[in-house]
Amino acid sequence: MNKRRTGSIHRLLIIMMALALTGPLAAGDTPSDQSLAGKFVETALNDRFGYTLLREVCEIGPRLSGSENSAQAIQWAKEKMEELKFDRVFLQPVMVPHWVRGEVEKAEIVQSAHYAGKSLNISAYGGSVGTPPQGIVAGVVEVHSFEELNSLGEKARGKIIFFNQPFEQGQPETFQGYRQAVVHRVRGASAAAKVGGVAALVRSVTTRFDNVTHVGNMRYDPKIGKVPAAAIGVLDAEFLSDALQHDPELQIKIELSCQTLPDVQSYNVIGDLLGTEYPNEYVVVSGHFDSWDKGDGAHDDASGCMQALEVLTLFQRLGIKPRRTVRCIFYINEENGTRGGLAYAALSDSLGLKHVAAIESDRGAFTPRGFNVETDSASLAHMQSWLPVLRQAGIEWVREGGSGSDIEPLKSSKALIGYVPDGQRYFDFHHSDNDVFEAVHPREFEMGSAAMATLVYLLSEYGL
Amino acid sequence: MNKRRTGSIHRLLIIMMALALTGPLAAGDTPSDQSLAGKFVETALNDRFGYTLLREVCEIGPRLSGSENSAQAIQWAKEKMEELKFDRVFLQPVMVPHWVRGEVEKAEIVQSAHYAGKSLNISAYGGSVGTPPQGIVAGVVEVHSFEELNSLGEKARGKIIFFNQPFEQGQPETFQGYRQAVVHRVRGASAAAKVGGVAALVRSVTTRFDNVTHVGNMRYDPKIGKVPAAAIGVLDAEFLSDALQHDPELQIKIELSCQTLPDVQSYNVIGDLLGTEYPNEYVVVSGHFDSWDKGDGAHDDASGCMQALEVLTLFQRLGIKPRRTVRCIFYINEENGTRGGLAYAALSDSLGLKHVAAIESDRGAFTPRGFNVETDSASLAHMQSWLPVLRQAGIEWVREGGSGSDIEPLKSSKALIGYVPDGQRYFDFHHSDNDVFEAVHPREFEMGSAAMATLVYLLSEYGL
Repeated sequence: MNKRRTGSIHRLLIIMMALALTGPLAAGDTPSDQSLAGKFVETALNDRFGYTLLREVCEIGPRLSGSENSAQAIQWAKEKMEELKFDRVFLQPVMVPHWVRGEVEKAEIVQSAHYAGKSLNISAYGGSVGTPPQGIVAGVVEVHSFEELNSLGEKARGKIIFFNQPFEQGQPETFQGYRQAVVHRVRGASAAAKVGGVAALVRSVTTRFDNVTHVGNMRYDPKIGKVPAAAIGVLDAEFLSDALQHDPELQIKIELSCQTLPDVQSYNVIGDLLGTEYPNEYVVVSGHFDSWDKGDGAHDDASGCMQALEVLTLFQRLGIKPRRTVRCIFYINEENGTRGGLAYAALSDSLGLKHVAAIESDRGAFTPRGFNVETDSASLAHMQSWLPVLRQAGIEWVREGGSGSDIEPLKSSKALIGYVPDGQRYFDFHHSDNDVFEAVHPREFEMGSAAMATLVYLLSEYGL
Repeated sequence: MNKRRTGSIHRLLIIMMALALTGPLAAGDTPSDQSLAGKFVETALNDRFGYTLLREVCEIGPRLSGSENSAQAIQWAKEKMEELKFDRVFLQPVMVPHWVRGEVEKAEIVQSAHYAGKSLNISAYGGSVGTPPQGIVAGVVEVHSFEELNSLGEKARGKIIFFNQPFEQGQPETFQGYRQAVVHRVRGASAAAKVGGVAALVRSVTTRFDNVTHVGNMRYDPKIGKVPAAAIGVLDAEFLSDALQHDPELQIKIELSCQTLPDVQSYNVIGDLLGTEYPNEYVVVSGHFDSWDKGDGAHDDASGCMQALEVLTLFQRLGIKPRRTVRCIFYINEENGTRGGLAYAALSDSLGLKHVAAIESDRGAFTPRGFNVETDSASLAHMQSWLPVLRQAGIEWVREGGSGSDIEPLKSSKALIGYVPDGQRYFDFHHSDNDVFEAVHPREFEMGSAAMATLVYLLSEYGL
């Protein structure tokens, strides 16, 4: 493309953007839409209703699938939706995995003149087998990649494999660094077992330099025997790496009592505001209600659920009757099975439900940036034409991109939409004791509610 | 505008935006510019050099104009720039006001059966006169606006005027709420004195619900006698308001020993990387080095200064020789006089310096959102054509808007540019003991450095 053409395109672009900013009138961009977006923002920020509910959920505690806390939270949510007089509230039964951490979770350096007795902060990964009751005692080899591990040959046999690859901080999007680092969490145990290792210890996948363990799900390769896998705090990972430099022969004793129990009955929680014109067309707004058993599961993902709930209450508080049915879903079991998302998609298919769109909030409750959308190009363009309205709630862009784990299975939906807040701080908290109610900022949380309410309104009003 | 035309404009807009995102080539948007932006981001996020310097500055403590800390920080900054081997480093002398808080700062409810003895957390506003040594004892009237105050008539005479207007939380931009609320801080004392009041107590201007005082500058109307003015913590403001409901006759005793001393010698700190082609054309990147005497003055504005400094070091670390001179300025006395900004503009005028642009970072070190620009429309369009590059550092927009207090006087500059990070959390910290090093997130800080480095590079490379 030559420079002259580029220049004129740039000028055109600027004119177009200026027009967009001053608000040309179209479906989804009328003065009343504009004013409604402003009211969503104002009401959310002033009332902080969703944030108040978030505190209630966080007081129940973390909500691992199959846990008592999880059952209690589901009951709380159903009662809350009934109390709020949603038009229809129900629980969708879902059988979920029931992994428990157990009482014992210890690691200690042994067999070392300098370092013996030093305890290390570890936490088993979800799905991991435990150790024998007497624990595992073994030497340690440090690696930074599967390639490095596979090149070790016999040196890995009988050892604890210590994956110590730091989170790549140099990328503007933390989710990129996460995706690179998390492979060792997910596949480290089987990779270790394959070369004769007896356990996997993985540097916590986090942007923060502290000693809190960041847990998460792991998977076993069914063709390979199972060995335990656990996260180790970043500071202890650094300590262990240093110690191995000075004493490569040191050994570690690991004791883990985690285990997988039989599946248990659980539920998705679903609440509807019925559409006045198209009650059988659905706009879903959702989060997942399970969490890891650390902190409060506040950002991940009590916040997404409470924002979804708040969207419906914003309609109520502003007296808006949606044209299409607005459905709030708290999915169960995103973290270790996605059973809730799969069950809802199956229900939808079996009933032939018509979904205009499904939105999921599962990237923390930070300031809004944009929406990732999976849809056809015409629908994407339609949604992009709503940007002048969405900008009032802090949304800067609507673009093609991955939506959310729980809504992905809902292939019949015209659009699948992931809410994308700012991600700089997310992995400070993710899957750890750092993820508590106090880590959620009320204004950032509420801006997210308002952004989603605005999009849900436009979808329910204009369809796709 | 009719719907059809709007639709086609929207389609065109979408095509234009898609082209912009895939990166048409133009000055400021070449593959090497794109790649350089990525390197600024990567280097800033990985090295965290500016953030490390921020810790050093914060360890000196808050830097009120004329204070010992301020002098110490200025010396530190000059030595740091010399150590970093900037091409030219100098201090520009500036006489600054010297207001001091003094030892005594107390408020207590007296003369009340129920509330006597309750102390209230207050802090004098900058520029305020103190009380007589024995303090002021007076009744209190609560108001929420100047209109309400002026309607009180004789009821205000002899009273402490308590401005208790809450921060308006309902707007997406916190700076809007700030501008509304801050008028009582700035003009409350003279408004109180005008109706016979003996002091002004103003609810802290903050988005947070805690009891920390948020200070700041105040001004006296020269035609009206001076009475003291102080901030009161939000929780104590709520307490006092409740107490006045039950006991309207309660009195408060206020003791303040603050005073204004003679002006003292201070300095702007200036460091240059000389331009290879146009050494006499300047691109300024700046913050203000003074702060209030609370917390560390971390977000306001040690961060802005350290980001500006880091921009030059990013050029150095990446081996970039700017075509135009890149000048880093730490202005002194933004908070209570803007003497540094005025002095630099005067110097520039007297020497006939040619400034292509001046950028200021003075809205906290949060995730980048955009740049506010004061310039002509062609230059604005030119800068907007750089968005595909700037987006890599998290910049979503470049638009017309107010720049920064210190650069505003530099009218001869072709463009005045305010860096605009996300503002949701800024007024939690602003002018208070909350504004400490720990309140700054390393990634958010560094993304700001990278965003400004990218813009400075484009300005120094292509001019305006």
